[in-house]
Amino acid sequence: MVHVYNSKVRLKEGRVGELTCGNGHKTDFSAPPEFRGNTGMLTAEDALVAAVNMSIMQTFLHLIEKKGIKIRGYEADANGILGNRKGNECIIRIVVHPKITIDPGTDIDGVELCLNEARKYSIIANSTHATLVVEHKLEIQKG
Amino acid sequence: MVHVYNSKVRLKEGRVGELTCGNGHKTDFSAPPEFRGNTGMLTAEDALVAAVNMSIMQTFLHLIEKKGIKIRGYEADANGILGNRKGNECIIRIVVHPKITIDPGTDIDGVELCLNEARKYSIIANSTHATLVVEHKLEIQKG
Repeated sequence: MVHVYNSKVRLKEGRVGELTCGNGHKTDFSAPPEFRGNTGMLTAEDALVAAVNMSIMQTFLHLIEKKGIKIRGYEADANGILGNRKGNECIIRIVVHPKITIDPGTDIDGVELCLNEARKYSIIANSTHATLVVEHKLEIQKG
Repeated sequence: MVHVYNSKVRLKEGRVGELTCGNGHKTDFSAPPEFRGNTGMLTAEDALVAAVNMSIMQTFLHLIEKKGIKIRGYEADANGILGNRKGNECIIRIVVHPKITIDPGTDIDGVELCLNEARKYSIIANSTHATLVVEHKLEIQKG
């Protein structure tokens, strides 16, 4: 089965647009402030970095569920660095820092394997040219 | 100057996460419904397609402004197709359909040039592996 993901944009006023995603999310967007956009709004650059960050989390959750591994918590910071490749500006590197909280006795090797596989199988990680680095931290929560 | 784009994700409940983007946008997200996620929420797949769609619009607006070209309206549908490359699932093709409304007498060649350059210089278009096709339509609004 072919899956297609759809989005619509529409210019509202000035350089502010309205985004409607196929799965229902709707929000205003602009260029980033350093490119004369507004603060407090979604930007294309943030959306790309967020897509990678969200995809790695969702892929990881899917993989641990298949293995029957339970976690207490997952959070991740991601940074996308703007650079130049072949004369064109693009996001050249994305670094994701997942912090996973687990109970004592959790299958740590299993968690680390799932995280490596999430990096490998994430649909969005495989859709970007940017070099992607995932540096994780496991926190074992006692009690 | 180096620009860095940041996002944070945090697992809330089940497989629903909370996304906070560096420029301030905040929303819940999930996997797409076909991967057992929720409807009505942002997904990583939608975010990638949206990033390309938003970036082409913002780059186009920047370029026409530099040329002093004014438009009446801009809207665009974008579709990202899930496929397989080297054994991994990824978004293999994104097609963007901008519809630009202009007044009679507007520099049509200038508009088309800016749209081609937006495709070429869009930061996000240059950050994705997906084959990107932009098929536009110009509408001249009389009166």
